[in-house]
Formats: sequence, structure tokens, C-alpha cells
Amino acid sequence: MRKIFVFTAIISFQFIVFSGFSQAEDSVVIRKIYNEALSNPVAYHNLDYLCNRIGGRLCGSAQAEKAVQWTKKVLDGMGLDSVYLQPVTVEHWERGPKEKASVTGKSGKRNLNVCAIGGSIPTPVSGITANVIEVKNFDELALLGKEKIAGKIVFFNRAADPRPIYTFEAYGGSVDQRARGAMQAGRFGALAVIVRSATPAHDNFPHTGNHHYADSVKAIPAFCVSTNDADSLSLFLKNDPKLKLFLHSACILHPEAPSYNVIGEIRGTTHPEEVILVGGHLDSWDIGQGAHDDGAGIVQSMEVLRLFKALNIKPARTVRFVAFMDEEYGQRGAKAYATASKLLADSGKEKHIAAMEADRGGATPLGFSIDGTAEEMVRIKAWKPLLLPYGIWSFEKSGSGVDIHDLKAQGTLLIALVTDSQRYFDYHHSDNDTFDKVNVRELEMGAAAMAGLVWLLDGGW
Amino acid sequence: MRKIFVFTAIISFQFIVFSGFSQAEDSVVIRKIYNEALSNPVAYHNLDYLCNRIGGRLCGSAQAEKAVQWTKKVLDGMGLDSVYLQPVTVEHWERGPKEKASVTGKSGKRNLNVCAIGGSIPTPVSGITANVIEVKNFDELALLGKEKIAGKIVFFNRAADPRPIYTFEAYGGSVDQRARGAMQAGRFGALAVIVRSATPAHDNFPHTGNHHYADSVKAIPAFCVSTNDADSLSLFLKNDPKLKLFLHSACILHPEAPSYNVIGEIRGTTHPEEVILVGGHLDSWDIGQGAHDDGAGIVQSMEVLRLFKALNIKPARTVRFVAFMDEEYGQRGAKAYATASKLLADSGKEKHIAAMEADRGGATPLGFSIDGTAEEMVRIKAWKPLLLPYGIWSFEKSGSGVDIHDLKAQGTLLIALVTDSQRYFDYHHSDNDTFDKVNVRELEMGAAAMAGLVWLLDGGW
Repeated sequence: MRKIFVFTAIISFQFIVFSGFSQAEDSVVIRKIYNEALSNPVAYHNLDYLCNRIGGRLCGSAQAEKAVQWTKKVLDGMGLDSVYLQPVTVEHWERGPKEKASVTGKSGKRNLNVCAIGGSIPTPVSGITANVIEVKNFDELALLGKEKIAGKIVFFNRAADPRPIYTFEAYGGSVDQRARGAMQAGRFGALAVIVRSATPAHDNFPHTGNHHYADSVKAIPAFCVSTNDADSLSLFLKNDPKLKLFLHSACILHPEAPSYNVIGEIRGTTHPEEVILVGGHLDSWDIGQGAHDDGAGIVQSMEVLRLFKALNIKPARTVRFVAFMDEEYGQRGAKAYATASKLLADSGKEKHIAAMEADRGGATPLGFSIDGTAEEMVRIKAWKPLLLPYGIWSFEKSGSGVDIHDLKAQGTLLIALVTDSQRYFDYHHSDNDTFDKVNVRELEMGAAAMAGLVWLLDGGW
Repeated sequence: MRKIFVFTAIISFQFIVFSGFSQAEDSVVIRKIYNEALSNPVAYHNLDYLCNRIGGRLCGSAQAEKAVQWTKKVLDGMGLDSVYLQPVTVEHWERGPKEKASVTGKSGKRNLNVCAIGGSIPTPVSGITANVIEVKNFDELALLGKEKIAGKIVFFNRAADPRPIYTFEAYGGSVDQRARGAMQAGRFGALAVIVRSATPAHDNFPHTGNHHYADSVKAIPAFCVSTNDADSLSLFLKNDPKLKLFLHSACILHPEAPSYNVIGEIRGTTHPEEVILVGGHLDSWDIGQGAHDDGAGIVQSMEVLRLFKALNIKPARTVRFVAFMDEEYGQRGAKAYATASKLLADSGKEKHIAAMEADRGGATPLGFSIDGTAEEMVRIKAWKPLLLPYGIWSFEKSGSGVDIHDLKAQGTLLIALVTDSQRYFDYHHSDNDTFDKVNVRELEMGAAAMAGLVWLLDGGW
């Protein structure tokens, strides 16, 4: 089928975009891509395996290693032109046994749903018991100063704003408390921090994530607390400012460990040195199953290759799937890939013309976020009529994804699949991010949208 | 707030659409509507009550009566200008005790997940036990004819097509088996029908719905079977065509019963006789909780009024909420409303300028389906820039909703809220349609989209 269109790779962009013939043929191929994706739930079954048989897979863990081997095995079975592992050295933090938290005060004792923030040091074996001081942001913290904070547990409790339509905006507006709260509170002698989970949802799940210590500040243990329990703790504090909070964790930082990016590709028929990358991140947080984050993106990106094979599409450029390791913790996989890629690019052996990451959850796709030039935006937006029948309406110039970001140095066009974000932070980084929260059709539509755009990029770039 | 804009009701459409000033002010109001909807989960709490305290509410049932009284009570508490009940006489079919179905054959006995189709007659007390003949459509049925069908149970097993993007299309392409299967099979002397549930989902839930007998054909009992069990039954039949299927139901058709449409309104300040209707249907099937179908539409439509009150918007036209009774069974509420409305319209006392129904589930809103003239489409599409920031991108000329359809005779502009349909038929008419399947933000976004469009219609029509 593809051979009909191979010529499009070598003729001008104007012809591709404005030729009625070409768009008509493109629309036929895209319809076939969607039909195949929606009729054969391979991506969904892959996600089932990754979530229910392997589960949460933080970099350095045995589950992450299992995920690497499983991904390679799936790729090996797809009849691709090349499947390989790219070595990556990752940090290996382990949560240890389930964390404990409880408040004791005037009205007795009550447990709180908490979990350690990724990378946190452990508490002493006996835990930490101290008074709590609640703040909404770093300015409040600084105003209180060492006198009010030293020897206490700082409780960051600024809620995610429910008003932004795209929930990543609300997340971005509250996540500083998790990412830098321990570092900031540590400056003033706090014993630990407990941070309201970065989600607009009202639930009982602590939502974890990464954070950073500063070399110049003594590290202190860091916890997330569920939004419902954050509300409760705040209420308790109003009635009983002297209450005591007990926190216990036993996190372990192991030595760095070997791991891999997993790569599989269909070699281009006429321009094999020009790469169109599709990918997501194979690691996930250890709690939950990493279903939406980012099992969905992994199986959708693999599905792009499967769809091309199933429909006998032979791309002119190389279409490469990359399962990046360690997006959640230290982005070592992204760095290793970008470094190796730069060497190949500098020596003229390979060039990434486009890279697309799926890492915003497996809900209904709405469009693409495009990190490209104004001219590139025009070229991509010209394809909108081909994708609008599938509900792909949004083509925004904006950021892409953490794993592909460093390819920008090569001049690569960067793209992120944009999905409906309303439910995403209900699941994100929590025990609630499980396979059953992903709808098969929504997942398949995302894979098909990606494959459709790869088809267009291959023919029209 | 509204008084700034009251003048817009009496000046020309062109000014409204093309005046930058007016659209800028509209955009401020629409942002406030969304902020209020997303910050105060009143609609969600209402849905919680309707689903978890009242539950499934088929017309004529005690639950439907409870739903009427509860809806009236909620409206009474909203400070509206008028709240009233409109009497409706409804049919009252009752499912009776849980239906039973099992296959017995070479490989033993196996139960199937079935439920009676709404309006079905019961089986004899001892049930029906017979051989099964599987068909995909009415043509196949007619080809087999009386000789092959008489004395058997007909199994309609045409799967919903997974390929259409809008799942209502797949539903529409398979629902004839449920709606007319018993009537068609009855012509050829079948003893009963068992119909594959009209959903593209692969699940264990029988999905019920309505059907029709023909006066000229002997009525036979009608059942739906879950899609997973339909697949199993088909496989069993391939291996063992002589297997016996046992079906039992004990449905009751009670005498017709009194019920009500529930109505509440904010009277227009300058054109009270011009009505903008928002509504959904208060009844649901008896199984499940009628959360997506159509609890969501009910609480979203009520939320339109709440948002107007909360923001102190005083519409120029009357904004009327109608909770229609009996959409699922016989549409008696819609008929009663349309009949009464026609009398008022004919006598010049009232005119519905627009009617909007929310009855496509409580998932993320994507746009509106508009049953209007070409000129009306142009006028509405001119508002697209105001709603696109909220993901409302689709403005299609197409059908509206069963409950408002008859108002077309008055020349009323008819509109349906269009929501993401991917998950809808996972829930539709089954035990799976429960409160927990509705996401609070998705629900609120739908209510805000409706309120935004009502605001624009009030000012710009």
C-alpha cells in the first residue's frame, strides 16, 4: 500500500498539502489505520499484561527489568527490522514498607493516607513526631522563618486550582510544593514535610512523584498526603494547633543499577537515515500499575508499529519506537538516547526529523501539542481536515515531552499526543492508576491518531 | 451582571456576532460560568443523591415518583421564579424477579447473563426451554423462514461495529435486533428471542432497552444477553447445535400510572414569553442507577439554572428546566409537554425559541448537535471562538433529543449537548451505569457548556 505514496517523500510540501488527490488517498489510509486499531485490541491486551502481570515499575526495580524484557519480547514478535536494548544506568530508590502517618490530639488519634515522595530519605526508625505548621506556599514559609518552623513538620496545603480546563495547568500550579517543599522547609530547620497531593481530585489516594534536595540544605523526609486527608488535617489543626503528627518511612537508596531503553523500528524504504520517533516511558511509579502513566503511551506507541505492519505500510523514513527508561525519577533514559543520537546526527549517519511522545494518559485523544517553527505549524495544521473526523481538533504550538525534549538540539520537530485531561490526575502517581481505569476505545483512538500523524509526517515532511 | 447585556436581546444579530466588544464581554461571562461550575460540585452531589439514594427509576415505579419529588424539592430550594409539576400518564412495566438463562448441552450446563428487554411479556412460570437458532439480521431470519424457526428461540447476534468514531452510530446499527427482534421472530413462530446487547463493549452486563411488538404478531418473550455471553453462546452452538436454552422471566405490565414532568424556570426580564428550554429525562431503566443515562443530563440541566442564579445572571428570555418523564419507555412526558406547549404557542402566549437536551452521557463535552436552518447554523458557529477554549469544538447540523423533538413544529431551534461517546455504551442501560462512572469535572464541564450556550442564545437570538 505504501508504495503508491513513496513518491510523496521526494516531492514538494505544497503538493502534499494542497493536492486533493493526495489528501483523498491519505484519508483512505487513515481510515484503515483507525479501523484496524479499533477492531483488534492488541494495545489493550498489552496494557493488561504490563499492568496486571508486571505492575508498578520504578527504575532500578525488578519490575522495571521485567518490563524491559517483556517489551523486547513483544517487539521481537512483531516482525520489525530491528529490535535492541540501549543500556542506561539508573538510580534505584526503594520505598520500603508501607509508610505510616497519624495525628494525635484533643480528639484522639487518626491515621492519614500518606506515601513517601520519590527520592525521600527515610525517617528515623522510631519515626518523627512533632507539631505541624500549615502553609500554602514558599512565601508564607519564608515569612514564618526559622523561629516558627524549626523542629516542626511543615504541611504544604495549597489545593490544585479546579478552574483550568486543561488539568496539567492546575498540576503545574501546585506541584512546586511536592518538588521543592522539602528543600525549602529544610532551610528553616523543619523535621519533615507533608504535602497535599498534586491533584484537583478529592480522594483518599496519596499521589507521589519526584522531588529534589539541595546540596546546601540538610535533607529531611518528605511525604504526600491524600487531598481528603489534607482537608482533614487542616481542619484538625484549626481546632487543635498543638496536635502531634507521627510520620514513618523506611526508604532505601540503593547503588545505581543497569537498565535499558527498549527500541524497535521499521526501516525506511527510501530514507532510512531519517527517523520518526514514537515513544513513551516504560518506567512508572512503584504504587499503582502505571496504567495511564505511562503504560498507555508505551502500548500506543508500539501499536503505531503494529498498525503499519498490519496494513503493510512501508514507510519511506524509519519509524522507531522507543520505550524510555526512568522518566519519573531521573530521566536517564532520555539523556542516554539524546546523547547517542547526537553522535549519530553529528556524524551525518542519522537524523530525527520528528519525535512524538505519548505521556498524558490513555484517555480520548484531542490533538497534538507541537514544538516546532511557525512554518512547521502551518504544515501540520494543513492536515487538520484529515484528522478532524476522528475528533483530533487541537493543534497547539506548545511543549512536547520530557523524554524527547533533548532532541530539539538536532532541530527535530517535537510532538506530544494530547488527550482528554479531565480524569488524568485522578489516577496520576497513585494506587488508583490501574488497568481498569483505561478504556479500550480511548486507548485505541490515541494509537490510531499517532499512527495517522506518523503516516502524514512520513509522506509530507 | 446581566443587565449590561439586556439590550442585546433587542438589537440585531449582526451586532452580537461581529462586535468585538460583545464577544469580549461574553467571554468574561462564560469564563465565570466555568469557574463557578468547576469550583462548586453541586451537580455532582445532586447526581450522587439521584443515583445512590433513589437509583434506577423506570416510569411508573416508586423510584420514579421519588425522583419527581426530589427534583421538585431541589428546584424549590433554588430560588427560581416558578417550579411546578406537569401531569403525565405513563405505562408501568415491571421486570419482576431477576431473570434466568442457562444453556444445557454436550458440555454440561452454563448460566448466561441476561435481562428482559423493556416491555417484554413474561415467559410461562416454568420458563421456556428450546433449541436455538442464531442469526445476524432480519434478512437471515426471513431466509430461514417458519420451517427452521418455529418452536425455537432466535438468537440475534450481530455485534456492534467497533469502527465508527461516534459510538451512537454503532449502537444505531445494531439496535434493530433489540427493538424489533421479537416482532420479527414472532412472525415465524419463534418461542422467544435472545439478543446480543447493543454495545461495542465486551462485558458481562446485559444491556436492556425498549422494544416494540406488532399488533398483528403474537408477542413472545424478549431477552438481552451480555456481549461476552453472546460470544460464548455462539461458540457453544457451533460445537453443539442441538443445545437447549432455558429462559425465565416474570415481567408484569401494571395499569397505567400517574406521573409528572418536573419544571422550574427563571423568568425572562424583557421577553418572558420567549422560552429557552434545557432538560434531560428523569426516568431511567430499572437496572443500574441511570447515572450517565440520564441522571447526568438532569443534574447538568438543573445546574444551568443554578449557575445563572449563582452569578446573578438575569436572562432576557425565560430559561426553563424540564425533567422529562418516560423517555425510555414511551416518551409520554415529551408528548405531554409538546402538546401543552403547542396550545400556548398557538394562542401566542409562549414561544420556545430554543430547546437543548442533555442525554448522551456525562463525559467530557465536545460540542453541540444542532437541528436548525442553515442560517441558524451560521449564527451559532459564529460563537465557536467563545467556546473553543473550553474544548467545545464540534457544531454539527444533526439531530437533537427525543424529549424535545416534537417542539420542532413550533419552529424551535433544537440542540443536543454532544459528549465524548467512547465509554457511553459501556454503561448504557445496564447495571454498570452507576454514579462512580461519572467524573465530576466532565459532568461540570458539560453543565458549563450548556449554560454558556444558553447565555449566548439569550443575548444573541
